[in-house]
Amino acid sequence: MVVIIDVLRATSTIATALHNGAECVIPVATVPRCIEIGTELNAITAGERDGRIAEGLEHGNSPFEYPPEFVKGKKLVLTTTNGTKLLHMALDNGAAEIITGSFPNLSAVCDHIQTRNMPVILGCAAWKDRVNIEDTLFAGAVIDRVAHQFDINCDASKLALNTYRQAKENLFGFMKENNASHYQRLTNYGLEKDIRYCLTPDQAPVLPIFRGDKLICE
Amino acid sequence: MVVIIDVLRATSTIATALHNGAECVIPVATVPRCIEIGTELNAITAGERDGRIAEGLEHGNSPFEYPPEFVKGKKLVLTTTNGTKLLHMALDNGAAEIITGSFPNLSAVCDHIQTRNMPVILGCAAWKDRVNIEDTLFAGAVIDRVAHQFDINCDASKLALNTYRQAKENLFGFMKENNASHYQRLTNYGLEKDIRYCLTPDQAPVLPIFRGDKLICE
Repeated sequence: MVVIIDVLRATSTIATALHNGAECVIPVATVPRCIEIGTELNAITAGERDGRIAEGLEHGNSPFEYPPEFVKGKKLVLTTTNGTKLLHMALDNGAAEIITGSFPNLSAVCDHIQTRNMPVILGCAAWKDRVNIEDTLFAGAVIDRVAHQFDINCDASKLALNTYRQAKENLFGFMKENNASHYQRLTNYGLEKDIRYCLTPDQAPVLPIFRGDKLICE
Repeated sequence: MVVIIDVLRATSTIATALHNGAECVIPVATVPRCIEIGTELNAITAGERDGRIAEGLEHGNSPFEYPPEFVKGKKLVLTTTNGTKLLHMALDNGAAEIITGSFPNLSAVCDHIQTRNMPVILGCAAWKDRVNIEDTLFAGAVIDRVAHQFDINCDASKLALNTYRQAKENLFGFMKENNASHYQRLTNYGLEKDIRYCLTPDQAPVLPIFRGDKLICE
């Protein structure tokens, strides 16, 4: 099983939209593809480039843009560069199951992992192929909950767990103190509220699972 | 500038051999190449596979194998899989300068970085392309000393610094508590003494610098 993690903000927004009643979320890599599928399926198109809604799309990456009254029963096509790349890696390597994880659906992810009897890869989408703090913290949070059921032979997991345990009383404070790159980037866009929400557990307790070409809740 | 970091044990052994008077250390990727150059230069050949001296070579990877009475004035050809890969990445990308770092030469590395006015990449050789704890700790130790002179815009550096600050009072204990993969592997081979040495600062205070095809102290 692969858990795709892109805490700020793709997988937090995916969980939120599905929790608020979206029929499905279709992740795509590019803006043109987003427009194409959006037109074909009469779906909401969403995605940002450099902190603004990408040209040709209707909505952004913030979880707050997808309340029930807007998103219920609708399809959402979301462009995510890092997350989609990871999704294709998982598909190309024959992942038995692909789900998405974020703090808003932390417990749903952990519960699912614990009921399955299979190896788990926690895939941090990160940012332009580089490690980021928030995805590492989420991986650590999952490991903190499920480690007793697994053999872990991976120093990255141990570092993530260690970092999470140090940070868990105040995840937002940890991001701020360590001047995380996404903390800087998003607060520059005035998105502190998004960061706080995306670091809060279990506000959108659903399990997005990849079926065919889309994420749904079963 | 690129600092190649392979704490357990390649770069610790390189610093130690040079500190003990070796004329140079020639890093090579494979055992056959090690034998070839060793014969050509009448040099000591060294390298391990799975915890034993590799077939056809004379010595292993332990820093304790290279005391002054053995290594002084000699050339050492050392096979290192992860370190050599990183070295070639640095060369292929036109690194202005390449040095090697390890706890035994921590201060020498930090002093050198601080006297140069150039960007620095701390290259953790890691293990089979995966993060390891000890190289991360060393990167954190360097950042802890030199950060005030640099702009750091890289979450991996921030995580490394954070982890080092948490671990620095007892690096060996941190490796043990977190069950680091190399802690397990090397203690299985009875090499706890090597680990302790390789985590101790400034026992081999030299600056190995790459010139032509070899590491020397200038």
